[in-house]
Amino acid sequence: MKYPSNNIIYGNRGMTLEYLINSSNDYYRMIDKAIVYKKPTPITVARVNFPSRYEAKIEEAYYKTPSTTDYNGIYNKKYIDYEAKETIKDYFPLAHIFEHQINHLLKVKSLGGISFVIIYFKNYNSIILIDIIDFINFFNKNNTKTLKYNDAIKIGHIVNIDNNIINYLKIIDYLYL
Amino acid sequence: MKYPSNNIIYGNRGMTLEYLINSSNDYYRMIDKAIVYKKPTPITVARVNFPSRYEAKIEEAYYKTPSTTDYNGIYNKKYIDYEAKETIKDYFPLAHIFEHQINHLLKVKSLGGISFVIIYFKNYNSIILIDIIDFINFFNKNNTKTLKYNDAIKIGHIVNIDNNIINYLKIIDYLYL
Repeated sequence: MKYPSNNIIYGNRGMTLEYLINSSNDYYRMIDKAIVYKKPTPITVARVNFPSRYEAKIEEAYYKTPSTTDYNGIYNKKYIDYEAKETIKDYFPLAHIFEHQINHLLKVKSLGGISFVIIYFKNYNSIILIDIIDFINFFNKNNTKTLKYNDAIKIGHIVNIDNNIINYLKIIDYLYL
Repeated sequence: MKYPSNNIIYGNRGMTLEYLINSSNDYYRMIDKAIVYKKPTPITVARVNFPSRYEAKIEEAYYKTPSTTDYNGIYNKKYIDYEAKETIKDYFPLAHIFEHQINHLLKVKSLGGISFVIIYFKNYNSIILIDIIDFINFFNKNNTKTLKYNDAIKIGHIVNIDNNIINYLKIIDYLYL
């Protein structure tokens, strides 16, 4: 199943995973199904100027390594937490997720939350959701640092795309609820 | 109970609520009791310079209004979400919390999460946790825009402080679990 027919991002080859996830989360919020937001990118502010009393202009700042993952929120009374990544290769390199992010997701799981990764394999126009335990077990069992697309679809679940909405909560229903 | 003895921030008059909450959350994470983080402050980046290939320097950026609240996470398998505010007055002005933040907290509640506000009344050295429903009901019922400290301790719960840890999860246990 290299090119699953229900998994093509029709005409959306230029779309980022972030865009698709954000529009999906907007939709979920609109219909009161889930509340999930992307966390702001953490920044260290070095210098701020105040052109007026009510205006702050940041004139020097640097990107910081995020403490946690990109997305978290509530669905079906449960806490959910995930990291989303794209790859333009035929595989996903484990190194693309920080170790402390993996540990965070494992900790969420151990506290009773739902945690996973979403990987967009651009070459295959395919988005895969993988439970954090299945994800990390794969690398450990196979003693590898890369996850090929063909393995990803075995340990994960293909997320359908429909009108710029990726219905990943359907997979959550199936996997956890 | 204007100055509850177990509620004095000993020698910590200069401490911010953010500091106290962050150190409490660090402690909760350390003992695997809860995972709660402060969200980064959202910023709109207008101009970035790249002094080198691996270095990005933000040279113009502006603070954005946060979409949601400052803190969220997981405790006892539940999603928790709250906003924390300080006041140096004898009362807390409702205007200090954005309306969309209140709505966010109400929505979290309606989806089965735990949501509340934490207010630090600096004049009283006292930190009060108030469930979002009790909080909003107070303003509606009394047709007011301010919450006096004496009313806050009636509708809310005093959070004990011990060694820079504010044990607000104890209140959560009592209120919701």
